[in-house]
Amino acid sequence: MSQSEHPGVIMAGEMAEQPGILRRLLTEGAGAVRETAAAVAARRPRFVLLSARGTSDNAALYAKYLLEIRRGLPCGLASMSTVTAYGARPDLSDVLFVTVSQSGGSPDLVSSARAAREAGAITLAVTNSPDSPLAAVSEFHVDVLAGAERALPATKTYTATLLALYLFVEGLAGGAGAAAGVLPDRAEALLARQDEVRDLAARYRFAERMVITSRGYGYPTAKEAALKLMETSYIPALAYSGADLLHGPLAMVDNVSPVIAVVPEGRGGEVLRPVLDRLRGRGADLCVLGPAEAAATASAGFVLPTEGVAEEVQPVLEILPLQLLAYEVTIARGQDPDAPRALAKVTRTR
Amino acid sequence: MSQSEHPGVIMAGEMAEQPGILRRLLTEGAGAVRETAAAVAARRPRFVLLSARGTSDNAALYAKYLLEIRRGLPCGLASMSTVTAYGARPDLSDVLFVTVSQSGGSPDLVSSARAAREAGAITLAVTNSPDSPLAAVSEFHVDVLAGAERALPATKTYTATLLALYLFVEGLAGGAGAAAGVLPDRAEALLARQDEVRDLAARYRFAERMVITSRGYGYPTAKEAALKLMETSYIPALAYSGADLLHGPLAMVDNVSPVIAVVPEGRGGEVLRPVLDRLRGRGADLCVLGPAEAAATASAGFVLPTEGVAEEVQPVLEILPLQLLAYEVTIARGQDPDAPRALAKVTRTR
Repeated sequence: MSQSEHPGVIMAGEMAEQPGILRRLLTEGAGAVRETAAAVAARRPRFVLLSARGTSDNAALYAKYLLEIRRGLPCGLASMSTVTAYGARPDLSDVLFVTVSQSGGSPDLVSSARAAREAGAITLAVTNSPDSPLAAVSEFHVDVLAGAERALPATKTYTATLLALYLFVEGLAGGAGAAAGVLPDRAEALLARQDEVRDLAARYRFAERMVITSRGYGYPTAKEAALKLMETSYIPALAYSGADLLHGPLAMVDNVSPVIAVVPEGRGGEVLRPVLDRLRGRGADLCVLGPAEAAATASAGFVLPTEGVAEEVQPVLEILPLQLLAYEVTIARGQDPDAPRALAKVTRTR
Repeated sequence: MSQSEHPGVIMAGEMAEQPGILRRLLTEGAGAVRETAAAVAARRPRFVLLSARGTSDNAALYAKYLLEIRRGLPCGLASMSTVTAYGARPDLSDVLFVTVSQSGGSPDLVSSARAAREAGAITLAVTNSPDSPLAAVSEFHVDVLAGAERALPATKTYTATLLALYLFVEGLAGGAGAAAGVLPDRAEALLARQDEVRDLAARYRFAERMVITSRGYGYPTAKEAALKLMETSYIPALAYSGADLLHGPLAMVDNVSPVIAVVPEGRGGEVLRPVLDRLRGRGADLCVLGPAEAAATASAGFVLPTEGVAEEVQPVLEILPLQLLAYEVTIARGQDPDAPRALAKVTRTR
């Protein structure tokens, strides 16, 4: 199906850049993020709305967990059409309105950020494009410093955005985000295990569908992994929080439905355990990404070394083998991960 | 696969009750809902958090659109695990915390509502069970008056909850929700068209997956239709807002992937048009539920008569043919819609 002589070479290159990008964000970018966070904190937001689409929406969901758990700030994900299609003009005083977008160019994001600012919100854009229209209409801006991204499936901008959001949320309380210090080396070690992922990918060569589940901090990872698999391999991948899975979609899981569970080390992983038991009870083909003892109980596994990695920063690492998996499954299917059919890099939704 | 002599008889009976339930809620229930809404409005909430799972989560999403568009109240959907697993204790003063649950019995919903009340929120439970633990821990309660629901796939409690939420949101501004008056008769007319839906169901007898899309007020309908199809027929059904579909999942759509588009008459339908053009461009098998002229441009259609039905109450009607579709596809596949494998009526997630 590929038109390219080197299918996937761009995506592979960008995935490999990630440890270096995380390192640079920690050394060269963190100070600016901390200053922005301090300026936002001085305005004392009481509620946060997050606005994003696609991969950035999964990064925004990670920020929602951080803001609620670590800052006690109630959050919502914005339903953009209420503003852009229906002209809603909510009162957004005391609201921090965060727009997350790699390109900063999608017209609906720009106009909902502008509307939020007019409605009294403190507006923050988190982008990989400091010169973008979105950065221009927002009062504050955080640059994720990932460098130009050329592959259609976003990889390096996702992990850079997660780290930038983590540093921002820690900075709201004057923290430096020390837990992130281990990430660049750990990311490098994970990406070096591509052969393991290639073996795992063989398992999904003929999969007709997949279910990906997690809970808590791992849930954005499940959603992002599903999106990555869909847009590269075209396998319909359904992501559910472990709790939601039990409220209906579990009926769909049988012994030919592969399930991938992202098991964080920490509270998210603990509350996921009963879900894994139910999945095993349904005879599901279960692959666990997580601590060694959780991976050992499944049909297949990928061990995430989590010692010394605080649960709240694990999402920056968890997604890496899943990005590789999307890449490897797509290559195995003879398609080009760099250029999924039907997609454009800047999606101009309104 | 069915153990029952009369597969689907319970679900069919409950679907058929819906016009009568809507009528009763309007005549016998609306006054109490209006009083509750007035009492909540007097407390002047500035933000709303909605907490729910499964079908009720789709009803909560409908309420989010109503609250943002019609009341200008910024809203978020609660991520329950931040409280139940991670012990987050956000400051919820000025926050209206709405929990939606048919049974009012799921332990995580009860404990997150209790935690919200302790954190200073105005708490409201919207349930079909006035004697439930959830109603007991919440300061305010709205009873959706749907009568006991016995089929595992929720149908009548969904539409009753939508109507109750509509009446509540209108009541927040002292309104009576007059636009809802047409719903019982229109619902009756729609349910009488089961033969049309049965013909449509034949189309999906062998579908391996489905994509369901909509936008604005129709988006909760798309999500609920996908859930209903998954839990009864076990077809993996992926729901996306039209805008999100263009940010990645569109790559998955090809000429063997059936797509159902729920096209509201109004702003939601208008912003969905370019998405329908993109889908047609991908050669998708597109079935449109919506106004006659939109249905006419698709591979298949089901005309929703929308004259005289305000866009904000259309979701109460749109879901009816999709409930019937889930039922008919499941019967056609030789399964029992009343009792999907692996599910329990009260899901005891924690």
